Amino acid sequence: MNKVCEILGTEYPIIQGAMAWIAEGNLASAVSNGGGLGIIAAGGRDAEWLRAEIRRTRELTDKPFGVNIMLLAPNVDELMDVVCEEKVAVVTTGAGNPGKYIPKLKEAGIKVIPVVANVTLAIRVARAGADAIVAEGTEAGGHIGETTTMALVPQMVDAVDCPVIAAGGIADGRGIAAAYMLGADGVQIGTRFLVADECIVHPGYKGAILKAKDSSTVATGRSTGHPVRVIKNKLAKKILRLEAENADEEQINQLCTGTLAAAVRDGDADNGNIMSGQIAGLVKKEQPAAEIIEEMFKEAADVFASRKGII
Amino acid sequence: MNKVCEILGTEYPIIQGAMAWIAEGNLASAVSNGGGLGIIAAGGRDAEWLRAEIRRTRELTDKPFGVNIMLLAPNVDELMDVVCEEKVAVVTTGAGNPGKYIPKLKEAGIKVIPVVANVTLAIRVARAGADAIVAEGTEAGGHIGETTTMALVPQMVDAVDCPVIAAGGIADGRGIAAAYMLGADGVQIGTRFLVADECIVHPGYKGAILKAKDSSTVATGRSTGHPVRVIKNKLAKKILRLEAENADEEQINQLCTGTLAAAVRDGDADNGNIMSGQIAGLVKKEQPAAEIIEEMFKEAADVFASRKGII
Repeated sequence: MNKVCEILGTEYPIIQGAMAWIAEGNLASAVSNGGGLGIIAAGGRDAEWLRAEIRRTRELTDKPFGVNIMLLAPNVDELMDVVCEEKVAVVTTGAGNPGKYIPKLKEAGIKVIPVVANVTLAIRVARAGADAIVAEGTEAGGHIGETTTMALVPQMVDAVDCPVIAAGGIADGRGIAAAYMLGADGVQIGTRFLVADECIVHPGYKGAILKAKDSSTVATGRSTGHPVRVIKNKLAKKILRLEAENADEEQINQLCTGTLAAAVRDGDADNGNIMSGQIAGLVKKEQPAAEIIEEMFKEAADVFASRKGII
Repeated sequence: MNKVCEILGTEYPIIQGAMAWIAEGNLASAVSNGGGLGIIAAGGRDAEWLRAEIRRTRELTDKPFGVNIMLLAPNVDELMDVVCEEKVAVVTTGAGNPGKYIPKLKEAGIKVIPVVANVTLAIRVARAGADAIVAEGTEAGGHIGETTTMALVPQMVDAVDCPVIAAGGIADGRGIAAAYMLGADGVQIGTRFLVADECIVHPGYKGAILKAKDSSTVATGRSTGHPVRVIKNKLAKKILRLEAENADEEQINQLCTGTLAAAVRDGDADNGNIMSGQIAGLVKKEQPAAEIIEEMFKEAADVFASRKGII
């Protein structure tokens, strides 16, 4: 059996990417019902919301699902308490090393899968007891590192003993098959799930993903040391201009205030902060999450079979 | 037969990356003798040098090899004349659309393979008659675009009819197998050939590649619109600092003058401009070029066979 499926308790070795204010019970349960691991993103949420959302998701699926916790969140301790009390199946983490929480999470029977963008941190979280690691390339949407999936995955696989799950640049069966060749035992996919029927993001946001081409995203925030991949719209261009002019971080933060809500809730394709991976150009169709999963893994098998000749 | 092998006239579907001041007859002939397509980089060279180098390479191999020509070179017309007169097997091009040269190159029996970093340009060069296209991801060394190999290759494969050759982030059989899954029919590899025994670059440069980790490279020049991936050494940090301070492009150019020679000829690991891909962290051993090629393609077949279970 696939090691990642064993850890996740799923039919397919796929985790839905955590997308703040987007990934909640509707999407998470749809992904889990489709045989993947749905994720509730706790970023920007309080403990009460998270507890209620976990319970609501349990009513929508009897399959395992997970919660993503940003380690820099001011309420991280409270959020960790909630997932332990509610005993979710998996916790994925962002922005650091969840080491100090791992004993408590394991005691609650929770698998811990940090999302990591470089090999140094991967070695550290593996030593701290991570069950698997998501190797996230710079082509992913949202907060990113600098190394690409193609370069990062094999270097991480060589450096750690636990399973590696590839993220960034994957939106179809070709990407899944490629990730397997690089040594990953599973994938994490965000961008394609943005257009899942069950994803609650505003249709304007979905439209921006469906319209995107290969060069439609850009990393803002590199000058501040916190790059974020977004659709290159009016807002993104304004941010880049301020960065090029060496504007205060304060001024940039002010420009960004409320722009995630403008994207997610209002679907403002010009002035919203539309986080997206570079692979958005491959995403062409709104579908149920379960159909996306089935289609991608079928395609991965077909691609693998059809490429036998070239090898 | 593999379509790329057919076009290149080689045993393996692999092109050696063009590296200015580094890729000359010694490396090119070694790669061609090893069953790949060796490339002489014409960047920064004059027509006389190129003609002599092509003739010298012919004495070192009876296999096909190619020449890389930067379309922004001031002497591009002369260089094109030389390759047509000398009838090299393949011309790869950088920095644009070689369309206006294609009729003349084809008349001389030369295959034309542009190196391209986005889908829009790929569509244009395919229409102009390119025989194949190298899809180069941002993880590659030297002058780069912004889209990663994982995201770029499948989007380019969907957009053009000619074969696509993946470049960027590939230094072993896992990368080759992954490129095949993404739909590429061949690979272009630069960084790993930097440490080939036959590569004339200074041992200090090779040492910097062999010591590199996954996070050892950085893209300088983003602020000027011409990003270049290099090892993050003293020089690179100085350039980045100047860029962050919004220094004149003139001042940055002045700092960079002579630094490629310092890297290539003197092996100055601190103050030389050591161009390298992000995959340098996987490159651990100096070997003959032929051994590198054979080892990588054997590994690609092994990886493919061993991953059958997971698919």
